[in-house]
Amino acid sequence: MSVMEDVYPSRVGDRVRLIERADPVIYGTRTQPGPLTAEQLDFYEVNGFVVLPSLFQPDEIARLNAELRSLADSPTIGELDETITEPGSGHVRSIFRIHQLNEMYGRLARDERLAGAARQILSSEVYMHQSRVNLKPGFAGKEFYWHSDFETWHMEDGMPRMRALSISLALTENYPFNGPLMLMPGSHKTYISCVGETPANHYKESLKKQEYGVPDHESLTVLTDRGGIVAPTGPAGTAVLFDCNTMHGSNSNITPYPRSNVFFVYNSVENKLQNPFCGLTPRPEHIASRQRTETLAPLPTS
Amino acid sequence: MSVMEDVYPSRVGDRVRLIERADPVIYGTRTQPGPLTAEQLDFYEVNGFVVLPSLFQPDEIARLNAELRSLADSPTIGELDETITEPGSGHVRSIFRIHQLNEMYGRLARDERLAGAARQILSSEVYMHQSRVNLKPGFAGKEFYWHSDFETWHMEDGMPRMRALSISLALTENYPFNGPLMLMPGSHKTYISCVGETPANHYKESLKKQEYGVPDHESLTVLTDRGGIVAPTGPAGTAVLFDCNTMHGSNSNITPYPRSNVFFVYNSVENKLQNPFCGLTPRPEHIASRQRTETLAPLPTS
Repeated sequence: MSVMEDVYPSRVGDRVRLIERADPVIYGTRTQPGPLTAEQLDFYEVNGFVVLPSLFQPDEIARLNAELRSLADSPTIGELDETITEPGSGHVRSIFRIHQLNEMYGRLARDERLAGAARQILSSEVYMHQSRVNLKPGFAGKEFYWHSDFETWHMEDGMPRMRALSISLALTENYPFNGPLMLMPGSHKTYISCVGETPANHYKESLKKQEYGVPDHESLTVLTDRGGIVAPTGPAGTAVLFDCNTMHGSNSNITPYPRSNVFFVYNSVENKLQNPFCGLTPRPEHIASRQRTETLAPLPTS
Repeated sequence: MSVMEDVYPSRVGDRVRLIERADPVIYGTRTQPGPLTAEQLDFYEVNGFVVLPSLFQPDEIARLNAELRSLADSPTIGELDETITEPGSGHVRSIFRIHQLNEMYGRLARDERLAGAARQILSSEVYMHQSRVNLKPGFAGKEFYWHSDFETWHMEDGMPRMRALSISLALTENYPFNGPLMLMPGSHKTYISCVGETPANHYKESLKKQEYGVPDHESLTVLTDRGGIVAPTGPAGTAVLFDCNTMHGSNSNITPYPRSNVFFVYNSVENKLQNPFCGLTPRPEHIASRQRTETLAPLPTS
């Protein structure tokens, strides 16, 4: 591949293109050790995600929730660049770079059930491309439109290839009706090259509402005609691992049931960021790590 | 009961009140004939709704959909007061009074599976308080916040007592994730007296977004703590019958799957409208029937 070639162009023209994935889904020879079974790896390869029900126990989740509450209630948290607050109420909605801001979440990021699964799928050491906790209150959870994370990470952060994955660990129960993560099975095999150019400082808005790099209705219909939609449900402690190119989104949540989760993006150390492919300045460090790319090695056994 | 007494006050003060239902759910002695089984009536009485899967056959639904499409595409439909169009696109979103504007839907309103079930539950002849078809497109279906229809019909239309029910007949498949109707089981037994006064001509806005007569978070949490939430799914042709005081709402729909339904409100002829209990002028005839209150007698057998 020449330096000039971009196998995953987007936001460059006025026509949508469906581009076949040029990268493996499961890297390596499947002989790498890790917590996932052969069946789970097979499912992930075909569908672009796998659900691990109750991967964490209730007492572990209780501790993570208590820590998160005290973090969100601390008087200075709102002053951090890493913190996104609700307009109006000032309530904390997300905290980025949580695995470096908080020790308990730092240990969680290196937990073998998560980082080990990432290493197993990506067949290399991994580092954290982005981490955050999301606190979505009941009654007023907003929808988040369909998107491939990779399209954004490639265009706006300069992630070269599809060798990253996300893990969403539920801190509250996911019901069908409290705005759970929805995924399009099989969508990870197709890259949707979106129309339109990326405006400067787009990231400030895009964390609240996606407007650029938005897939079109026709392409989304192609993907759902192929594989439908799934919206995994399950108790707090359930994790969803999904490929960086799996199309996903969520509906609004008018129910009283809040939805909180930890969101970790593991990238292969072989896939570190280059210049953004859209030609703009990179997004800030807490959205996309460039300097802080320490390998997430296993925790020492105590 | 004196003429002055309102057993279901709302929008009169600055405090929420939970008022116990003063009316039966199933009227009469249960000896009235009708299409519902004893089990279905029992379920309805306890939960405030009952789901009738595939009550209408695919060929019947296909005819209703074809008729609806040609109605929505007719060049003059947008000029009617009865038609609600999407701002921007001008696409038809709802047509009110559909059972009088269209013969096929007029016959549907008198179908024994629907009107007969209403007669059976309300133990009297019935008329149509409100009818409409809703066409919710995929990708952009908006949420509709929690509400009791009766609170609105009582306050804004002058419906005296809880002796009415709604039937939502699905014209498209209801998935968990395309913004299906959500109901709170058991909520029909409690009337939530809301805070705030009703502004004049409120109905023009309230059809798009509820802002008055909105139940508070605490009351909604009480109701879900008691009975949870259900979101019935099923193929097109599935009907949900629900009591006029059952708390319901729906989340947004970003999926490609549209959601269309027919919505009929059957009121007992013993429960015809008085002056609105909020003291304002009544809403228009196509939103709440005052003149056109013909009894929906069974269709002649051919």
